[in-house]
Amino acid sequence: MDNSRHPSKRVSLAGMHIDRSSAVPLHLQIAAHIRNSILRGVFPAGMQFLGSREIARELGCSRTVVLTAWDLLYAEGYLASTPRGSVMVASVAASHVEPPSAASPATEPAQHVGALALAARPRLRDHWPSVFAPGAPDVSTFPFKDWSRLLRQAWQNPREQECLDLPPEGHPRLRSEIASFLGSVRGLVCSPEEVVVTSGTSGALDFCSRMILDPGDEVWVEEPGFVEARWALTAAGAKLVPIPVDDKGLVVSEGVRRAPRARLIVVTPSHQYPLGVSMGLERRLELLDWANKKDIWVIEDDYNSEFRHQDSMTAALRSLDREGRVIYFGTFSKIMMPNLRLGYLVANRHFIEGFAKGRARIDVHTSGIGQLALAEFMREGHLLRHLRAMRRVYAARRRALIDAIGALMPDDLTVSSAVTGLHLVALFTDVMQRRMSDREAAAILKGAGIHVQPLSQNFLERPTRQGLVFGYGRLRVEDATPLLTRIAACIGGTSLNASSDAAKTLSY
Amino acid sequence: MDNSRHPSKRVSLAGMHIDRSSAVPLHLQIAAHIRNSILRGVFPAGMQFLGSREIARELGCSRTVVLTAWDLLYAEGYLASTPRGSVMVASVAASHVEPPSAASPATEPAQHVGALALAARPRLRDHWPSVFAPGAPDVSTFPFKDWSRLLRQAWQNPREQECLDLPPEGHPRLRSEIASFLGSVRGLVCSPEEVVVTSGTSGALDFCSRMILDPGDEVWVEEPGFVEARWALTAAGAKLVPIPVDDKGLVVSEGVRRAPRARLIVVTPSHQYPLGVSMGLERRLELLDWANKKDIWVIEDDYNSEFRHQDSMTAALRSLDREGRVIYFGTFSKIMMPNLRLGYLVANRHFIEGFAKGRARIDVHTSGIGQLALAEFMREGHLLRHLRAMRRVYAARRRALIDAIGALMPDDLTVSSAVTGLHLVALFTDVMQRRMSDREAAAILKGAGIHVQPLSQNFLERPTRQGLVFGYGRLRVEDATPLLTRIAACIGGTSLNASSDAAKTLSY
Repeated sequence: MDNSRHPSKRVSLAGMHIDRSSAVPLHLQIAAHIRNSILRGVFPAGMQFLGSREIARELGCSRTVVLTAWDLLYAEGYLASTPRGSVMVASVAASHVEPPSAASPATEPAQHVGALALAARPRLRDHWPSVFAPGAPDVSTFPFKDWSRLLRQAWQNPREQECLDLPPEGHPRLRSEIASFLGSVRGLVCSPEEVVVTSGTSGALDFCSRMILDPGDEVWVEEPGFVEARWALTAAGAKLVPIPVDDKGLVVSEGVRRAPRARLIVVTPSHQYPLGVSMGLERRLELLDWANKKDIWVIEDDYNSEFRHQDSMTAALRSLDREGRVIYFGTFSKIMMPNLRLGYLVANRHFIEGFAKGRARIDVHTSGIGQLALAEFMREGHLLRHLRAMRRVYAARRRALIDAIGALMPDDLTVSSAVTGLHLVALFTDVMQRRMSDREAAAILKGAGIHVQPLSQNFLERPTRQGLVFGYGRLRVEDATPLLTRIAACIGGTSLNASSDAAKTLSY
Repeated sequence: MDNSRHPSKRVSLAGMHIDRSSAVPLHLQIAAHIRNSILRGVFPAGMQFLGSREIARELGCSRTVVLTAWDLLYAEGYLASTPRGSVMVASVAASHVEPPSAASPATEPAQHVGALALAARPRLRDHWPSVFAPGAPDVSTFPFKDWSRLLRQAWQNPREQECLDLPPEGHPRLRSEIASFLGSVRGLVCSPEEVVVTSGTSGALDFCSRMILDPGDEVWVEEPGFVEARWALTAAGAKLVPIPVDDKGLVVSEGVRRAPRARLIVVTPSHQYPLGVSMGLERRLELLDWANKKDIWVIEDDYNSEFRHQDSMTAALRSLDREGRVIYFGTFSKIMMPNLRLGYLVANRHFIEGFAKGRARIDVHTSGIGQLALAEFMREGHLLRHLRAMRRVYAARRRALIDAIGALMPDDLTVSSAVTGLHLVALFTDVMQRRMSDREAAAILKGAGIHVQPLSQNFLERPTRQGLVFGYGRLRVEDATPLLTRIAACIGGTSLNASSDAAKTLSY
């Protein structure tokens, strides 16, 4: 008996009631019983189960049934393995930043759609916000005075009808301001009727996935890509097919080869996450051609295009779309702040109608607390002013970070992409790659109190590149060199010889 | 050819590509193609299809496949029948208040989980808020001055970390205020760690359904019950099993008989929606016994218990629950206003942990715009003061409505339940019932510009009772008699003889 870590005995499922006459397959009954017991606290973290053979004997079912239930609960994160190989309830307390394991390829069809996989998987946000957290904006110069004044103004004497319920599409004035904003900042021409106010990108992706997809449908996702956004797709039962990204963006021909039957394509064409690549016009047209030919939907997540200057900006996919099949996502999380949970999508009117009706049933509408205030905030020009100021701030931070990397780790890291945004990827050189993996590098840095995301965390399959993802939204220019000096001292090639020198630099 | 309403020809699906080697069943491929085309506007409302035999011949599949696709799209509301019986794209423009058709019994397992049923189904909210809309509160005396001041205060100089992201469980101060509020107003003892801030009941039900249920799982729902809340369950693939409600609340023994394998029970024990019955203690214990015995979850939607005076209040199910299997839902929609989209749930800590992790992935957290302000609003006592004032206001409105019904339609309607809230049900007497159905009554009243919900709209199966659901949250006391006079003139028994008298009353 393995009780090295937990003195408790390994438990059986002898008490569990199995209903053989039920239409629900046995493995789902077993999985539901265990999931239930974990969520109710009856099976505590660390509790170990008897072997699958013994449990199968107890329940009078085949061992395959037990193993299938195990697999499902492993995939959902409710179960884990002990060092000695027995099955235990996963420890929630021990959760830490960790990518989806390559051992459970997400390209397999999600067999289990109903129960969200919720339990002991790591929460990427646990360490948010570190100074290098990708996507975290700087709020220190945000015009809170105007924002708070407009919130008060919106609520001092509101119209009765607006207090009772907003349309599921959002406040008409906010939709209209977003349409003008997109026209002037993004060069995307759309009417207010094509805009819906959302509760942010993840929530919008959740809804769109459930509208568009049937369980088992294939979806092209970028590899590497934004892992957090993939959860909503997976919860809708999608089969994610990772499609590689090269220096021109998503390799459409690879998508055609790997998943010709995909029903949806999710892309970040203007500033690919995480690589920062801008998708070339030819690729964009190729992508749209394919979507038109196969009659499928495209979600364009334009998550921080606002920080690019207009002259360096390619047209949005949505602008090139003649058939109304691109659903454009934007967010206020980066240009204002994440906790608002406010974003928008732009799509053809038929889709908007369907989306709004779905929302009316499922979560009614995005909170109305800030919608009118935000419309006024945009109308009075505060958002544009803040955005212009932050473009300069972030460009300077990016420059400082790139310079510090170039000066302190020239043999170890290369920064390729030149567009602005809130993060960059420093790819490992061959030298560096021979020395360690990006996960090892991140682990060493974490030990030194510096949280940087390993690039390989953003891959679904075996990572083809190694690197570090540096968010710089909250990095002060004057901190770039000292921080990179510390990083070089921890993982840099010269540090192995000159670590004492590097350590001295810390006293700067 | 039926082209009576739409001059266009009936269309075929000849151009559609069918992939016989795909794992996706043919009927789902056909349904997806049509749904897609409707959402993109390619198939406009009113467009008619060829007969199923012709389409089957064109596509080279069996007619059953086509009929199965039709059924699915009917159920989702994308298709409708023409008067002559051919199949057409449902008209969104013609949507109006209408219950789910009894012809498509919702008790059948939902076969189609992924694509939310979104298209042309009626939006119950289209006519919100009429004066009799159930659940719509009066906001005219809401302390907007304090609310707007606290919003401003919360945002004038916020803590940086809170702007970046809130915990998925909600702002700690709001969770703590909710816990005290429930203790003092509801007599429900809980710790802040057992509270999660939600974006309202529908959204919370959506998440809980997806956590707890596998597609095909049975759920007990009250019959009659809150139809809107059932959509989230259906979207999660649940098989709804309507369980009758009598004068002691949900008939547990009927649930045991009808769906002994149900995985979840959703109830409104303190003020059953719509009947207003309070579930007796014996029934509550019977319900919990069953849940304990079968290891299943119970969602207690306590949507407006706050309006009851504490001395008339029975303990929450959650208070009686020793095993942590009751998930308690509350909302600020009624005691403040719906457009906030703020609510909460109370559950055992393991469940909360799972719920929070799921949210972190799917929609991150409830908007942070109002959370701190609401915590302060509660801490300063404004919510309690407003609640106490509104209890008196609503009690007076209820009294006025009951009196007016008693005085003007004594032979037609009976109001049984005596508890307070925001709505009541006036049941049809036998005399009234012989004269017309509640749907007919509602249609007549609608013609006169008065929107009242027919009770039978809240049934999933054949309605066992007829009546009218009157919301009175926004009914001024002085309007009760004039409005009921108009109603009596339209549908009352005496009106047939004395309609000219009744019409005179209108000049009041």
